[in-house]
Amino acid sequence: MPRKHLLLSTSRTRDTGYLEHAAAGVQWLLGGERRRIVFIPYAAVRFSYDDYEEMVAGGLAAYDVEGIHRFEDPLRAVEDADAICVGGGNTFKLVHDLHALGLMDPIREKAMAGAPYLGWSAGANIASPRLCTTNDMPIIEPASFETLGLIRAQINPHYHDTHPDGHMGETREERIQEFMLLHPKVPVVGLREGAWLQVEDQKATLQGSAGARLFSGDAPPRDLDSGTDLSRYLGPGADDR
Amino acid sequence: MPRKHLLLSTSRTRDTGYLEHAAAGVQWLLGGERRRIVFIPYAAVRFSYDDYEEMVAGGLAAYDVEGIHRFEDPLRAVEDADAICVGGGNTFKLVHDLHALGLMDPIREKAMAGAPYLGWSAGANIASPRLCTTNDMPIIEPASFETLGLIRAQINPHYHDTHPDGHMGETREERIQEFMLLHPKVPVVGLREGAWLQVEDQKATLQGSAGARLFSGDAPPRDLDSGTDLSRYLGPGADDR
Repeated sequence: MPRKHLLLSTSRTRDTGYLEHAAAGVQWLLGGERRRIVFIPYAAVRFSYDDYEEMVAGGLAAYDVEGIHRFEDPLRAVEDADAICVGGGNTFKLVHDLHALGLMDPIREKAMAGAPYLGWSAGANIASPRLCTTNDMPIIEPASFETLGLIRAQINPHYHDTHPDGHMGETREERIQEFMLLHPKVPVVGLREGAWLQVEDQKATLQGSAGARLFSGDAPPRDLDSGTDLSRYLGPGADDR
Repeated sequence: MPRKHLLLSTSRTRDTGYLEHAAAGVQWLLGGERRRIVFIPYAAVRFSYDDYEEMVAGGLAAYDVEGIHRFEDPLRAVEDADAICVGGGNTFKLVHDLHALGLMDPIREKAMAGAPYLGWSAGANIASPRLCTTNDMPIIEPASFETLGLIRAQINPHYHDTHPDGHMGETREERIQEFMLLHPKVPVVGLREGAWLQVEDQKATLQGSAGARLFSGDAPPRDLDSGTDLSRYLGPGADDR
């Protein structure tokens, strides 16, 4: 079965309910069939896994959503599910837990074998080869920065151009340029709030609202509109880990 | 000799030249004697070590500043210097290089033995036990998150309360609260732009302009004014690494 991933910048925009803005993407990914989705809440730090599961189940009411934290054997939960859903929060916490529980490889294999993969924020970031383009604070040290590598590019979720007045830290674009200097072969897609990527087999397109900013090699960064074909940046394989 | 550290949020505020806003702190740390300062520029990614050295030498014109990248033996450069200065940029790059070159322990020992230590942004962050409260993007994986541990608290440089309009990511305060949930015994000092810490022997005080926000245990976060004694939060030792 060809792989199929839906990678969202965020779980909600300012004016919409949980996963509501991406309903068309969810329909594209999961269709009308009532599927069993295993939800991975490990990115949560400031709220409980139970509360997180409830919120996500509400946003995906047409499907059977169950948190992986309810299973005695999390590996089995991944194997038995029809689809995988990974929520946002803190990427370091998520990657720490996935490595600690030995789930990174099984999730990668399952998703590459065709089980629909839905991720937002941290859950979209880890579809990249490494966590290197997260915006999150490194509150815990994971065993490795290596992530799922479902796509060749790095995703930067919550991309924006604004910069707090009087703040002397780096802009988002400057941070991503730092990454590009150390990893010139790896493209970065900065997903703006409301945008998402749809990946199917060898094809990837930008969807949703707000668009994205693409950083690739020596080319100047450029803004992309919804509908842009990103297959050449998002094809499978992480060739410059 | 008692240890003496000057830890700045930033190298400059909006209206001032390089290190100019902290001239009183620099004078407190280094005094009037012409000292040999080894400057560590490894946090730089988007500009060269040479350019960085030149900028810092200009800001510390009363002293002899030399970049560690000019020395054949960087360990020897640390040992021979009168004072150590670590600049900002990307904290992950800085910590990666310090571990790779085996410099973390020698710098810690030198600073704890009394050689004045001046750091800003990433250079202040690494005075903490771990890099865990940096705002920087994890563009490279360091061998460990462990840093100098000159003080017991974590420093968060460039602390601010603003939040881009329509942005759905976490606020700075929420990010630090995530850290506190995983490491409840470690206080965090969010240094606002223009603020700094002066640490001497067992005493630490907040100085400069703008103040700081303190996160400690179960107490609600609170704003601190310049002049606040922070000795109980900043005394030596990293007891909850």
